[in-house]
Amino acid sequence: MTETPYQDLSRFRLPEDFRGRPGWYVQLWWIVEALLFRPSPQFLYGWRRWLLRKFGAKIGRGAIIRPTVKTQFPWKVTIGDYAWIGDDVVLYSLGPIEVGHDAVISQKSYLCTGSHDPGMPDFPIYSKPIYIEPECWIATDVYVGPGVRIGRGTLVGARSSVFKDLPAGKICMGSPARIIKDRVAGPPR
Amino acid sequence: MTETPYQDLSRFRLPEDFRGRPGWYVQLWWIVEALLFRPSPQFLYGWRRWLLRKFGAKIGRGAIIRPTVKTQFPWKVTIGDYAWIGDDVVLYSLGPIEVGHDAVISQKSYLCTGSHDPGMPDFPIYSKPIYIEPECWIATDVYVGPGVRIGRGTLVGARSSVFKDLPAGKICMGSPARIIKDRVAGPPR
Amino acid sequence: MTETPYQDLSRFRLPEDFRGRPGWYVQLWWIVEALLFRPSPQFLYGWRRWLLRKFGAKIGRGAIIRPTVKTQFPWKVTIGDYAWIGDDVVLYSLGPIEVGHDAVISQKSYLCTGSHDPGMPDFPIYSKPIYIEPECWIATDVYVGPGVRIGRGTLVGARSSVFKDLPAGKICMGSPARIIKDRVAGPPR
Repeated sequence: MTETPYQDLSRFRLPEDFRGRPGWYVQLWWIVEALLFRPSPQFLYGWRRWLLRKFGAKIGRGAIIRPTVKTQFPWKVTIGDYAWIGDDVVLYSLGPIEVGHDAVISQKSYLCTGSHDPGMPDFPIYSKPIYIEPECWIATDVYVGPGVRIGRGTLVGARSSVFKDLPAGKICMGSPARIIKDRVAGPPR
Repeated sequence: MTETPYQDLSRFRLPEDFRGRPGWYVQLWWIVEALLFRPSPQFLYGWRRWLLRKFGAKIGRGAIIRPTVKTQFPWKVTIGDYAWIGDDVVLYSLGPIEVGHDAVISQKSYLCTGSHDPGMPDFPIYSKPIYIEPECWIATDVYVGPGVRIGRGTLVGARSSVFKDLPAGKICMGSPARIIKDRVAGPPR
Repeated sequence: MTETPYQDLSRFRLPEDFRGRPGWYVQLWWIVEALLFRPSPQFLYGWRRWLLRKFGAKIGRGAIIRPTVKTQFPWKVTIGDYAWIGDDVVLYSLGPIEVGHDAVISQKSYLCTGSHDPGMPDFPIYSKPIYIEPECWIATDVYVGPGVRIGRGTLVGARSSVFKDLPAGKICMGSPARIIKDRVAGPPR
C-alpha cells in the first residue's frame, strides 16, 4: 500500500476552455500588453481602454487604468464608468472580475479569482468571480480572494485581505478584513 | 430627493500645483526613470544619485538606491548620507518623504504619502509627509502611511504596516505595528 | 563620551565570498535574467530551466517557473521535479533555497534568506537557508523569512507571513502564520 500524496503535479491538467480563448489568442494579448499597453505613457488612458476593449473587456467611459496594471484575461473583465485601477494592480481574471462605476482599486491591490482544491492530489484549478460594487474604495495593497463580493460604497483600508463578502456602506480593515464602522456619504459639493 | 453618492469620480479634480512641477516635467521624469534609471546596472549608485538630484531630490553622499526603486516625484524626496533604499521600494512622494542618514528601507517597502477624503463624493486627494529618522531600519515589505514619523533607530519588522507615529529606539512589528521592545544599540566595533 | 549609533552604514562590509561567485559573474546573471529570462514567452519553461541550470541552479524535470520570477543567486537554488514557481515570486537566495518536488510557490510570494544583526552598528549581513519540503503549497503573496523550514505537504494560506518553522501536513494562516488544522490528503484519482 502506498501513501496518497498531498500533491502530484505531474497529474495536473488545465480544464478545457478554462481560459475562454485559444492559446494563441492568450499569447497575443500578453504580447500586446508587453509591447503596447505597459510602455504607454500614463496620460494615454483612452489608448489603454481601447486595447482592453479590443480583447473583449467591457470598459466604461472615463475609466482610469494605469499602464502598470496587469490583466490576465481581459475578456473576463468589466470596469464601470469613471472607475480607477491604480499602479501595479493585478486583475488576476481566471474568472470574471467586475468593478462597478466610480469604484477605486488603489496601487498594488491584487484581485485573485483563482485557486486550487488542496484535497485532491492532481491539484485541480478553479475560479470564482469577484464583484467590486460601485463607489467602493479598495485602498493600497489590498488582497481580494476568489468569490468575494464587496458591497456598494464600502472602503477597505490599506493592506487588508478580504477572504469573504463585505456588506455595503462600511469601512473595513485588517487581515481578514473586519467591519470597523459605517461609511457616511458626505454632502454633495 | 436624490441619494448622495459615496464617490462620484467624474467630479474629481487634482488641486492646482499638487505635483509641484508642470505636467511636462513630471512626464520627463517618468521617461528618464524608465530609460535611464531602471535599466542601469546595480553598481551605478552614483549615476542614480545624480539623476535624482537633477530632478530636485536631496540625496546624501554614499546613499545606496537600487535601480528598481520607484520615485513618484523626486523633487519631494530627501535621503540622508549612507541611507539604503532597497529593491522594489516605492517612494510614493505626492507629499515630502525624508529618509534620515544611515536609515535602511528594505525591499518591497511602500512609503505612501497620499490619500483621499472618503467622506466627500468628489474624493479629494491630499498628502502628508513621511519622516523616517536616522538609523531606522524599515524591513522587507513594510507599508508606511501618510503623515507617519518613525523615530531615530527604530526597527520595523518585515511585513508590518505603520499607520501612526512610532517612537525612537524601539523594535516594532505587526499590522498595525506595535512596540515589542527597546532596541539596544550595540557596542562599537 | 559619544553615544553608540544604532546604525553606521559607512562601516558596512559585505563578507568575503558572501555571494558565492565573483562580481562579474553575478552581473552576468543579472544581464542574462533581464535580456533572456524575463522577456521569454510564458510557455518556454524548458528554456528558463536551462538558463537557471547554466548558472548553477539544480532544477528538476517539469518544473514550471514563470518569466517574472526573480532569482538573486541561481547557484544557491534547488527546485524539485514538477514544482511550480508563480508570477512575481522572488527567490531572494543570499543563502540556499530548496523547494521540494511537487511544491507550489504561488504569485507574489517572497522567500527571503537574508537579514542583518540590528544590535551591531556596522549592520552585519547574514543568511539562513529556507526549505520548502515536497508537496507544500505556499499560496499568493506569502512571506517566508530566513532559516524557515516548512514541512511536507503543508499549505500556507494567501497573504500569510512565516517567521518560524511549520510542521508537515498542516493548513496554516496569518501573520505570523499559525496552524489552523490538519491537511488531509485526498483520494487518488
